[in-house]
Amino acid sequence: MSDSIKYVLDESRMPRTWYNLAADLPGPPPPVLHPGTLKPVGPDDLAPLFPMSLILQEVSTERAIEIPEPVRDVYRQWRPTPLYRARRLEHALQTPARIYYKYEGVSPAGSHKPNTAVAQAFFNREAGVKKIATETGAGQWGSSLAFAGALFGIEILVFMVRVSYDQKPYRRAFMEIFGARCVPSPSNETNFGRQVLAATPNSNGSLGIAISEAVEVAATRDDTKYALGSVLNHVLLHQTIIGQEALAQLEMANDYPDIVVGCTGGGSNFAGIAFPFIGEKLRRGRDVRILAIEPSACPSLTRGKYAYDFGDTGHMTPLVKMHTLGSAFMPPGFHAGGLRYHGMAPMVSHVKELGLIDARAYPQVSCFEAGVTFARAEGIVPAPEANHAVRGAIDEAIRCREEGVSRAILFNLCGHGHFDMQAYTDYFAGKLTDHAYDEGELAMALSGLPSVPSAV
Amino acid sequence: MSDSIKYVLDESRMPRTWYNLAADLPGPPPPVLHPGTLKPVGPDDLAPLFPMSLILQEVSTERAIEIPEPVRDVYRQWRPTPLYRARRLEHALQTPARIYYKYEGVSPAGSHKPNTAVAQAFFNREAGVKKIATETGAGQWGSSLAFAGALFGIEILVFMVRVSYDQKPYRRAFMEIFGARCVPSPSNETNFGRQVLAATPNSNGSLGIAISEAVEVAATRDDTKYALGSVLNHVLLHQTIIGQEALAQLEMANDYPDIVVGCTGGGSNFAGIAFPFIGEKLRRGRDVRILAIEPSACPSLTRGKYAYDFGDTGHMTPLVKMHTLGSAFMPPGFHAGGLRYHGMAPMVSHVKELGLIDARAYPQVSCFEAGVTFARAEGIVPAPEANHAVRGAIDEAIRCREEGVSRAILFNLCGHGHFDMQAYTDYFAGKLTDHAYDEGELAMALSGLPSVPSAV
Repeated sequence: MSDSIKYVLDESRMPRTWYNLAADLPGPPPPVLHPGTLKPVGPDDLAPLFPMSLILQEVSTERAIEIPEPVRDVYRQWRPTPLYRARRLEHALQTPARIYYKYEGVSPAGSHKPNTAVAQAFFNREAGVKKIATETGAGQWGSSLAFAGALFGIEILVFMVRVSYDQKPYRRAFMEIFGARCVPSPSNETNFGRQVLAATPNSNGSLGIAISEAVEVAATRDDTKYALGSVLNHVLLHQTIIGQEALAQLEMANDYPDIVVGCTGGGSNFAGIAFPFIGEKLRRGRDVRILAIEPSACPSLTRGKYAYDFGDTGHMTPLVKMHTLGSAFMPPGFHAGGLRYHGMAPMVSHVKELGLIDARAYPQVSCFEAGVTFARAEGIVPAPEANHAVRGAIDEAIRCREEGVSRAILFNLCGHGHFDMQAYTDYFAGKLTDHAYDEGELAMALSGLPSVPSAV
Repeated sequence: MSDSIKYVLDESRMPRTWYNLAADLPGPPPPVLHPGTLKPVGPDDLAPLFPMSLILQEVSTERAIEIPEPVRDVYRQWRPTPLYRARRLEHALQTPARIYYKYEGVSPAGSHKPNTAVAQAFFNREAGVKKIATETGAGQWGSSLAFAGALFGIEILVFMVRVSYDQKPYRRAFMEIFGARCVPSPSNETNFGRQVLAATPNSNGSLGIAISEAVEVAATRDDTKYALGSVLNHVLLHQTIIGQEALAQLEMANDYPDIVVGCTGGGSNFAGIAFPFIGEKLRRGRDVRILAIEPSACPSLTRGKYAYDFGDTGHMTPLVKMHTLGSAFMPPGFHAGGLRYHGMAPMVSHVKELGLIDARAYPQVSCFEAGVTFARAEGIVPAPEANHAVRGAIDEAIRCREEGVSRAILFNLCGHGHFDMQAYTDYFAGKLTDHAYDEGELAMALSGLPSVPSAV
């Protein structure tokens, strides 16, 4: 058999701009609303939380937004990331498909998250910010911002979902190596945290609660801003370097994907690989099918409602229109912690509504099975989140075999699983099960969506 | 400050041969002896354990040994590995030194070990071998051979030191992902294992015991060969791709090291970075100081005796002349498991005796301190083993500052610490201490060295 092939993009060809999909869409996504007035928020409303440079990126409709040179200098430590043709996997699957994957696990934190963490830390430092508060679920985002904070001299405070804080002490240690302070959420450091603890002293916490705590800290302390690792436009924007590099690398391979696959939690790695290809479709008519894979235990795109909702449990964030399971929805405790969020990035939701992408949900056991098949062929152990994309790509490759058609499949391997070995241990011990959410709870969470007049 | 710089070697310049230092030394190292006859072993004596191609590499005096194309194909997944100029670290240390590091943690198993695992698996497959038995301490080597076995269709059986098997379940899971079988040693699968268990049912195991078990399996089963991850000449040979790449990358940087630093356990990553530079010194007179850093809790090069000794506890291996603490020496349980071996590679010992390298020993806490300094500056969390090289390099850089001299320091960052976070957790909790070995035990172990007539 032929061995797998690595496509190395020369540093001189690393993108100089991020790609802003908003420039090429037929219309803008619905506006973000102030929860009190139900009127669109302006830049000033967001100023307590973010530096103005990031707020302007959030609402920009310019196609190309420059990546500052100091950010590119840091990117160069691990970028351009490799694109692989997975010939060993193709051989194992006996498929005529051409499978490509972009590997973001080569970054210091082991995932795509530093692409935006470094950018956000830079723009905050430029604005004179000395401290940033954030939240983290599985720990990928917290690790990445801790790394970026160490580079730009910014103190990082991470509210880590209590259950992850207890179960994943190694992610916490990783953040501490970079000098970040990591506290379990709900905590005694915020009014909202104290309120939750008073009601439920043994609360496991949730991403929604942790977001509320971090936002409260940023909103109430003059010296502290807030940072989010997914969902928002500017975060997705920073990830588009992934897809832009992949475009250049596929050109080296003289190929173009028929299908692009990414896993979706908040939507950032998916947007990173997919948006540049959607742009090619809209601007140049290059046909491509885009497939978002989500966990069936937290299926916002396939089972959620496209509606205005809060991004957090404490209802401190503005209202955004997105596919949501309701901010009160508590997803079961499956292993892809990075995909356990009740909502979807508004921009990803918007392109779904426009019919530019498809979505599919998978249970976790079949995703781990796909991850092990991938690892044995390609030598890389994927993160549980990434296993969803692997499953999606493998299923498309199997379909190629069944139909006797050779299609080019590109997927984003957004991170390695070195900090998720307990999940693999459970998988091999037969202890990993598929969790179904409670349909009644979902209905209840959806019925609690905030009421927004449809005229807005 | 200027940012750190990555030197990317084009794939077309990846070395086509391994470098064999034996060709350039004034004389060969002392012969390997049969423990019964005390006569030099011949290729046939080793044939039950290794395929003939590797045995011939073991005794070769040819300078350049071709890397087979299928091995290079696999190497290309992560090679050439990056060489970095650590300017952020230089800035943090306020040193005029130019610090370079070669980063081997980008491999699938996260260290330099796959360089030889892939080669060994390939040569075994060429010889028709279907099964390989090996041992592993911390798990780096077992993981690497498991990966290589998956690629070349060879069943891998790993005897993992009991205490590591229990303490590092994630390394075991990593091997299982690649389809290897991993059993705790001492085990019931070998005579020697049963013998140890009968005497000490709760034995923690040791690398020496695990080697004996793996060798026994290979020696007594027709379908199984043995593989070692360090110490032997052919293993060190396969690692020389590291130093050869570094030579080419330093040429890109228009620089040449005054000092080359590596950590030493069995000696393979040290030889990988150092031997090509020793070759430059011997052939071209390019002056360079080579520094081996070992743990002060297991100081074979600085406190061991240069003498013939067994490689294992069960005394099944041939006798090799090396710096040894005695095969009965039990090093304390410090965190750099990859450096916990009583002996040193015969070739590394030989160049030490020839005065071509210096050695220094460090206690573990100061190594972790150096690792954290490095991580905060450069964004990569080193393995505990690699922290020894980091400590050595940082101390040399501090000396440059104190002396007001700018020297070029190159060190090998042989692996990342993603599977060693418990050690960092202990370090931050203040629970990490420096272990001293018992001087009486060392004296006893040294007094038990096998008696070999000096005429040999």
